Amino acid sequence: MGISLGELAARFGCELIGDPSTTVSRVATLSGADAASISFLANSNYRNELRSTGAAAVILGAEDAAECPAASLIAGDPYLVYARVADVLHPRAEHAPGVHPSATIDGSASVAASAHVAAGVVVCAESTIGDNVYVGPGTVIGPRCRVERDTYLHANVTFVQDVSIGSRGIVHSGAVLGSDGFGNAMSEDGWVKVPQLGGVIIGDDVEIGANTTVDRGAIDDTIIGNGVRLDNLVQIAHNVRIGEHTAMAALTGISGSTTIGKRCMLAGRVGIVGHVSICDDVVIGGASVVSKDIASPGYYSGSFPAEKDRDWKRRIARFRRLEQLERRVSDLEDAAGRDGE
Amino acid sequence: MGISLGELAARFGCELIGDPSTTVSRVATLSGADAASISFLANSNYRNELRSTGAAAVILGAEDAAECPAASLIAGDPYLVYARVADVLHPRAEHAPGVHPSATIDGSASVAASAHVAAGVVVCAESTIGDNVYVGPGTVIGPRCRVERDTYLHANVTFVQDVSIGSRGIVHSGAVLGSDGFGNAMSEDGWVKVPQLGGVIIGDDVEIGANTTVDRGAIDDTIIGNGVRLDNLVQIAHNVRIGEHTAMAALTGISGSTTIGKRCMLAGRVGIVGHVSICDDVVIGGASVVSKDIASPGYYSGSFPAEKDRDWKRRIARFRRLEQLERRVSDLEDAAGRDGE
Amino acid sequence: MGISLGELAARFGCELIGDPSTTVSRVATLSGADAASISFLANSNYRNELRSTGAAAVILGAEDAAECPAASLIAGDPYLVYARVADVLHPRAEHAPGVHPSATIDGSASVAASAHVAAGVVVCAESTIGDNVYVGPGTVIGPRCRVERDTYLHANVTFVQDVSIGSRGIVHSGAVLGSDGFGNAMSEDGWVKVPQLGGVIIGDDVEIGANTTVDRGAIDDTIIGNGVRLDNLVQIAHNVRIGEHTAMAALTGISGSTTIGKRCMLAGRVGIVGHVSICDDVVIGGASVVSKDIASPGYYSGSFPAEKDRDWKRRIARFRRLEQLERRVSDLEDAAGRDGE
Repeated sequence: MGISLGELAARFGCELIGDPSTTVSRVATLSGADAASISFLANSNYRNELRSTGAAAVILGAEDAAECPAASLIAGDPYLVYARVADVLHPRAEHAPGVHPSATIDGSASVAASAHVAAGVVVCAESTIGDNVYVGPGTVIGPRCRVERDTYLHANVTFVQDVSIGSRGIVHSGAVLGSDGFGNAMSEDGWVKVPQLGGVIIGDDVEIGANTTVDRGAIDDTIIGNGVRLDNLVQIAHNVRIGEHTAMAALTGISGSTTIGKRCMLAGRVGIVGHVSICDDVVIGGASVVSKDIASPGYYSGSFPAEKDRDWKRRIARFRRLEQLERRVSDLEDAAGRDGE
Repeated sequence: MGISLGELAARFGCELIGDPSTTVSRVATLSGADAASISFLANSNYRNELRSTGAAAVILGAEDAAECPAASLIAGDPYLVYARVADVLHPRAEHAPGVHPSATIDGSASVAASAHVAAGVVVCAESTIGDNVYVGPGTVIGPRCRVERDTYLHANVTFVQDVSIGSRGIVHSGAVLGSDGFGNAMSEDGWVKVPQLGGVIIGDDVEIGANTTVDRGAIDDTIIGNGVRLDNLVQIAHNVRIGEHTAMAALTGISGSTTIGKRCMLAGRVGIVGHVSICDDVVIGGASVVSKDIASPGYYSGSFPAEKDRDWKRRIARFRRLEQLERRVSDLEDAAGRDGE
Repeated sequence: MGISLGELAARFGCELIGDPSTTVSRVATLSGADAASISFLANSNYRNELRSTGAAAVILGAEDAAECPAASLIAGDPYLVYARVADVLHPRAEHAPGVHPSATIDGSASVAASAHVAAGVVVCAESTIGDNVYVGPGTVIGPRCRVERDTYLHANVTFVQDVSIGSRGIVHSGAVLGSDGFGNAMSEDGWVKVPQLGGVIIGDDVEIGANTTVDRGAIDDTIIGNGVRLDNLVQIAHNVRIGEHTAMAALTGISGSTTIGKRCMLAGRVGIVGHVSICDDVVIGGASVVSKDIASPGYYSGSFPAEKDRDWKRRIARFRRLEQLERRVSDLEDAAGRDGE
């Protein structure tokens, strides 16, 4: 069941320092590894653990090879090679084709023979489940949805309606796709709901986290590009458009009609207001609030790190005295000017 | 299937510039509209799209009518009239009455004959489902709940127990109503759970977003007034009271026993601490933290917009030098005072 | 059905001022109490309600007993004693043992005869449900999970896979445990998923809130200690370790591989970056961002309270003029220096 280091080196283009016939059968952390394990070093914080690792082999950068007590697989990007090696050693379990007898499939829906539809699943009218798709227990696919081949929907996911997702996608449990956008118009009698009529279109190779919500568009669709990564508890409002390979960490919220470019990275708890445009290759630091367009690539941030509460309270007090401080400086300038005359 | 502009103008009190016999059958964005579509202009950002729209008619303010290449329906509040027109042209699909055979209804529960109970639904003891209610697939209604007429519960909603919701409500998928409040008392052996015994009372015409959570009260109930709008991923803690027609955007959290007035609007990612009181007609800007009572209506905010990280880091450094800056100013003042003597 | 004040005083070590034979049968708030109720005063904000309470008895501190118009149960920590009294007067409903016929239990799973498995539940391969466990409607227990005795899983919970939880735990509806961590490596062709292979290990007496997410570890496990309390909509990323009796309020997010000590308290909407270590007995104020290790116990914070928007905008403007203000002070210092020469 193992794979030889020689084969791994060849397959992933690494230089191997060590015996190519050594086999490994699982991945492990540096500190948890044994002689059947391959580990990796991608974060210099863990360099101390390298010297004492019991791994058979370690994937690492050239600069760390000298310190490695095991075989070294030298990679330009050790984390990327690790991801690929882990996928080879620990492939996702195969799922048997077939529809569980407790699932409810509408007569107008279409489910590929190779798809797995688990217990308690509901597939509604005019929806399509593609080849080799996995639909986990309790997941509900509302009307007019489309799930393309090799996509994996975990348990208790909800596609509300008019949601399409491309191939090789992963949607984690509790995610809700296609819920109504937050559209309300104020009248004399209170809020009037603005009907939400659009859908959600998700590209290929997209991963959507647990309990994340993606609203349907108000008129046109909400659009998520190929290769996008959304972490858990993310909110994507109606008519947002997210460019290819953009990633967002947990608890981030994007307001309605905002457009985000390609290859952007948003750390956790970011908020972006509605109707703005973020260009490609923007990185936004944790807990930042973006309130207007960003037109040039780069790293943006806007949060304060926590401090001892006593110190922080003093900082806030000084912050509030800034008006007064400005006035004191003006007074000094006036006095100096008078002095100078 | 269409409706004439003359009829729409009469029904919604608009001035019509154009042929009253023209019919429209769907709503569309200005840029996506065709000759069967009616569109709207409510946000001046989209004024450029007005001139080239292919719509048969546009709902807009009087100030924009001159620029409209199509028929104009002139409205005091174009967005509100649009909401009503969209509702006429795109009514929600009717749902057939009946209980799906895979649903589980407790013998002591009551389900109106006109209600729709979808596949996999569970309705527990002593709960009541009213006339024309829709209960989506996988939704669980725990014991002692009440859902009044014309309310629509999407798929995979959970009413834990002792939750009542009025008429014409909408609860989106993944919402959890009636979960235990976060009540813990510290003992020598760690946290002791404070039993949560209250319920949740929700008024008429309330909409609750996907994956939003509303906790039951600790002793008394958590109360949500008529016409309230909660977006996705909102947290309402135990014994919160929310006044009529208040709206909260996504990822906002209200801590326990806080009271919020009527017609308030909270933008996304707002946090309000526990045991405070917010008066009517308060607007709170995105990502703000409210830590004490607000007793006068108005607009409150407290977040910093993100900037280029390099600039932001300098701002933080200066912020941290404020103590030193105050001292330098004091020294200058002392010196000036001495000079002046 | 009632219990005498004498018995409550003896059981919970309180001094009783009043008739020990008086019985109470329910808990109530000070303002909602009647002659069959026992109430409590633990927050001085509610002292005004003490004088007019209709309760038969009130649990309170010695300093408040003089003002109490009813019998007094004097406690060192009135809230803790209240929690215990409420638990006695309002015990959780018993659940009948047995598996509902609509549940789906894998042949290799094990369910204790005393457990209650509700309608629509799915228990997958090699999972174990212990004695007296309650599994609510629609809950899914994926493969290789373990739920120990007396644990209560509400409706629509998801254990994705490889999740174990100890005894006497409570998991609220919509919580997702064991979802994949957010592990992605960038390649020339976009993100490559880093396989997530670990599990989630949860101790005894843990409570996990509604729609909270806890990711499985990347290689090793994500670990939650005994007695931990997580509120609703909390995100725990892969390989986080949370020490015993730590509590986190709603909408808080902990990034990957971060370690949090024992008895910490995180208020709502806190964010902690990845790969840091927080020592025991740390309290973090609401909406704070923790970006580095915390090595000494204490109270930390970092958020600004909201103000009237007009005032806040001026503060931001002054904050942005700090560079200029520093320069003005330097100029004054230079001038003063020159003057001094």
